[in-house]
Amino acid sequence: MQEIRAYIITIGDEILYGQIVDTNAQWMSALLDESGIKTIRRLTIGDDKSEILSAFDEAEKDSDLVLITGGLGPTPDDLTKPCLAEYFNDKLEMREEALNDLSELFKRLDRELSPLNEKQAELPTRAKYLKNDMGTAPGIWMESKKNTVFVSMPGVPYEMKFLMKERVLPEVKKRFMPTSIVHRRINTVGIGESWLHEIIGEKEKALPSHIRLAYLPSPGIVKLRFTGKGEDKPKLIEEVNKTVDEFKPLIEKYIYGYDDEKLEEAIGRVLKFKGKTIATAESCTGGKLAHKITSVPGSSEYFLGSVVSYSNDVKINVLGVKKETIEKEGAVSEDTVKQMAVGARKLLKTDIAISTSGIAGPGGGSKEKPVGTIWLGYADDNQVVAKKINLGKDRAMNIEYTTIAALNLLKKHIM
Amino acid sequence: MQEIRAYIITIGDEILYGQIVDTNAQWMSALLDESGIKTIRRLTIGDDKSEILSAFDEAEKDSDLVLITGGLGPTPDDLTKPCLAEYFNDKLEMREEALNDLSELFKRLDRELSPLNEKQAELPTRAKYLKNDMGTAPGIWMESKKNTVFVSMPGVPYEMKFLMKERVLPEVKKRFMPTSIVHRRINTVGIGESWLHEIIGEKEKALPSHIRLAYLPSPGIVKLRFTGKGEDKPKLIEEVNKTVDEFKPLIEKYIYGYDDEKLEEAIGRVLKFKGKTIATAESCTGGKLAHKITSVPGSSEYFLGSVVSYSNDVKINVLGVKKETIEKEGAVSEDTVKQMAVGARKLLKTDIAISTSGIAGPGGGSKEKPVGTIWLGYADDNQVVAKKINLGKDRAMNIEYTTIAALNLLKKHIM
Repeated sequence: MQEIRAYIITIGDEILYGQIVDTNAQWMSALLDESGIKTIRRLTIGDDKSEILSAFDEAEKDSDLVLITGGLGPTPDDLTKPCLAEYFNDKLEMREEALNDLSELFKRLDRELSPLNEKQAELPTRAKYLKNDMGTAPGIWMESKKNTVFVSMPGVPYEMKFLMKERVLPEVKKRFMPTSIVHRRINTVGIGESWLHEIIGEKEKALPSHIRLAYLPSPGIVKLRFTGKGEDKPKLIEEVNKTVDEFKPLIEKYIYGYDDEKLEEAIGRVLKFKGKTIATAESCTGGKLAHKITSVPGSSEYFLGSVVSYSNDVKINVLGVKKETIEKEGAVSEDTVKQMAVGARKLLKTDIAISTSGIAGPGGGSKEKPVGTIWLGYADDNQVVAKKINLGKDRAMNIEYTTIAALNLLKKHIM
Repeated sequence: MQEIRAYIITIGDEILYGQIVDTNAQWMSALLDESGIKTIRRLTIGDDKSEILSAFDEAEKDSDLVLITGGLGPTPDDLTKPCLAEYFNDKLEMREEALNDLSELFKRLDRELSPLNEKQAELPTRAKYLKNDMGTAPGIWMESKKNTVFVSMPGVPYEMKFLMKERVLPEVKKRFMPTSIVHRRINTVGIGESWLHEIIGEKEKALPSHIRLAYLPSPGIVKLRFTGKGEDKPKLIEEVNKTVDEFKPLIEKYIYGYDDEKLEEAIGRVLKFKGKTIATAESCTGGKLAHKITSVPGSSEYFLGSVVSYSNDVKINVLGVKKETIEKEGAVSEDTVKQMAVGARKLLKTDIAISTSGIAGPGGGSKEKPVGTIWLGYADDNQVVAKKINLGKDRAMNIEYTTIAALNLLKKHIM
């Protein structure tokens, strides 16, 4: 079967010099991989005309698809567009369609359209215009004499991701039609990659050659991605679904959802279905838990609110944690998280409440309670429970992982 | 002035296909940048012999220093060492010194030295051996006829970092003695890249050729990076600092800090200095605002807590927003955010409170209040103010941008 070869070019001094981390190239090549397109090279270069032009030249030689990010801003150090025009012996021209979209965007943000911004509506005359709903720099699609497709996108991650998913990938599929690829995911929480492998490793060995299994880990969560390749799509879908059904029973209790569903989405789905409402009482997570729950559209149907009780006074005066408890047991203790959950449930009038209190670090640790000591609480009409976890020394990781662990505690009680 | 040009090559299928994020290249180029060495390219390729050899060839053409990570493991799919030998018309040979270090390491770990591991002590005969105190794969230093230096290191981040700091950089400095590079940043909030350019563009044109200015944008925030190059480092530092001082007054009111300082860190610094405490009352940001503030170590000194009032009942019963206000004006209104801020200040007993209420989307919009309509509130002992902003349609972006806008509202009152 025909293979599509992609070449990713990241443009920008701030990335080349390591001032900021480039997450775009990794995200793009993972998306291409899912779509059955092979990334052959990833190249990062600076805001330098000759570098950009020679990179275009090399990329065109050995690839079918050249994906370019960065260098599309309105300032003079943004060179991608002029370089594209020069490389294709074309010139930049104001594109009506682009200018109208740009004006509308600025009207919506009720900001004034500066002359510099207007220049963003200039495109090479032979370019296909890819509308960017997320920002001011449009995507640009051009095809070379050798039929290599060049796509230029802004470097701002959420703008690039929108363009890749909504504009570029559909066009690419139309243009190249790769062999069918079918993905299914089993999403698990609360078990590590290697333990999962202990459980399903044997079954994995028995998979047919055209179905591959990949472990996709992130803090607290592992997604099992089954990828089937073949010509007959309906048959392939059937096969991959059957495979997923065979793996399920082995790891049932760790599964929270399938495919693109996130843990917070799965929890929202179940809460909505059961008609239950929830609140959070947060100390060490500092609002991250509520933020994660409310990142889901429609979460207002089941999430009523949160009290971030960072100080002990707030724990006592707002959530009603007993002063003696904090004095005797400390703010990071089983009794405190239990009383926080109970208090939040009462104050915010919900069916369920979950709570967190821990030492995120870097400061605040002690011999008995080192940095990474975390307590989680859960309360509903029938029970109040607490769970202790011991994490590492990194503040950001501790906050992130505690958030997932609290959602997992909730999942165990409602799923 | 002489400039050292570095070319970074990252080898490995798992990185090329986006299965893991490559943080090595960014870390290395940041270190090189600090050391005054210019990274001209960063290239990622797969575990493929011909790809590796042609990459070596390209890299040698236009650079003085080629830094290679990955492909040094003991398994057959690790190709870097054989490729180096082939590229330099050399052969691999057991290196006594390396073998002794390896045996000692395994003795210390009290593990058996396998034949496979022994192969890791094989080096090209003309290579300089760089001892790796952190692992089994040594660093390799080779010089080509064109005097280009090739350095090969393992891809394991802490091994690579050890070799870069302890072995490679000292050698490179001896070998090349690079020119100095000095960076300073002015960090701004509440003004777009193009408007900044309208204000400082003229002054930017007048910069001397050895001082460059780059705009580094992220949602709501733009960082201005001044980069100076020269031989005399103390003089250079003085020049760049003077330049920063000259730009300051033009954009004073948008500046929140300098260099690596984040907005939430700058705000924490000022609150600590003034001995003021703060709380948040959040609707549409759903806890993200509190999360951002508490992502700063030591934030418990000034941040006491937050009420995430997602439902109107919580706005009314916990924060004390008037029922009539919500019925007449709606939850997304000037009066509501004002009463939220006042209520949070009272309930959580802080000097200052900031509040958010808006339609993050995708649902909940109306003709009068479309998705993206956001109100921000601020309250202290002297005043209660509110501000309206109009954002786009993307929920995640609206939450992120509202968080920055709320911190900017706070900044305007305390800085």
